[in-house]
Amino acid sequence: MNGREIENLIKLLSRLPGFGPRSARRAVLQMLKKPETLMIPLSHALEETANAMTNCGICGNIDVVDPCHICADRNRTRDAICVVEEVQDLWALERAGAFKGQYHVLGGTLSPLDGVGPDDLRIDQLIERARDEAVTEVILATNATVDGQTTAHYITERLIETGVKVTRLAHGVPVGGELDYLDDGTLAAALRSRSVV
Amino acid sequence: MNGREIENLIKLLSRLPGFGPRSARRAVLQMLKKPETLMIPLSHALEETANAMTNCGICGNIDVVDPCHICADRNRTRDAICVVEEVQDLWALERAGAFKGQYHVLGGTLSPLDGVGPDDLRIDQLIERARDEAVTEVILATNATVDGQTTAHYITERLIETGVKVTRLAHGVPVGGELDYLDDGTLAAALRSRSVV
Repeated sequence: MNGREIENLIKLLSRLPGFGPRSARRAVLQMLKKPETLMIPLSHALEETANAMTNCGICGNIDVVDPCHICADRNRTRDAICVVEEVQDLWALERAGAFKGQYHVLGGTLSPLDGVGPDDLRIDQLIERARDEAVTEVILATNATVDGQTTAHYITERLIETGVKVTRLAHGVPVGGELDYLDDGTLAAALRSRSVV
Repeated sequence: MNGREIENLIKLLSRLPGFGPRSARRAVLQMLKKPETLMIPLSHALEETANAMTNCGICGNIDVVDPCHICADRNRTRDAICVVEEVQDLWALERAGAFKGQYHVLGGTLSPLDGVGPDDLRIDQLIERARDEAVTEVILATNATVDGQTTAHYITERLIETGVKVTRLAHGVPVGGELDYLDDGTLAAALRSRSVV
């Protein structure tokens, strides 16, 4: 229907999460209307980032420098390591701005059915980091899914030898959440962990 | 939070229609996981298209060749010109595949309040094209909005001198649409234009 170049661009864009063929077409049209201010800068930003990106050798975060700017930040504390499944979880916690320690990205969860074992995740590196005597606490922030909790359990066992304190995120009612819409598991967990007002 | 390059990329992506800061961040993470198969090709496709894109001197379509491949297509009929507001309308009609004639993109609608007059649209070019004796019909496919219909009315007046037949798209119930969800205007139009079974 359109030129080969335009169709190719639509096809590539529609592979992004949140985009389908229809929204990709709309985005391309929007960009075609302002090539200089959006299309060319976007092209350059993509190439620049793709060439510069790297995985942090310490925590596994994606950044353009190694160690990443979080591990390199001298204003952050060194006593706690927060363990997350994926980079997006790290970014989400950073957006919340409530944690000023170190991170460790596992790169997934244990999943025997999919053939993902401990050696496929960055667990050995975590144990190694937890041995550092500056580290006093490991916070497990894996997702509250079966796989996430299984992984957290496994890591807890492995961490026993290091003598470090292991904690996990609280379960409960999301802030702003309505009880009526919550699942039973969350409600039960929120009840169990109730606190005195 | 992230490196300057990554934040810049997220900012640019979130300016695309259908993307907000959150979905742009998700898309960037997805791309960072496969830079070679998605990020670099997307960057090149954007640059290639931005550099090659042009507006068709005949119909106003966006393409990488001028005249565009629709105007240049010798298998399409020359007797009817379908007038649309924007390029996306042309693409939508092409997707439907029901029209095999020529197009004419106005580039907007008449809108006195926004200071858009006949000279800001490609109306003179349309009258010129309609004077060609090969052209026997002009199909007005502007949107069924107040501005769209005002523009269609104005063009109809202007086309009288050319003696060409002027038609417009039918109003009615969308295929697959439920009456209960339709607005009164559409229902009234569908009733007025009812046909014998």
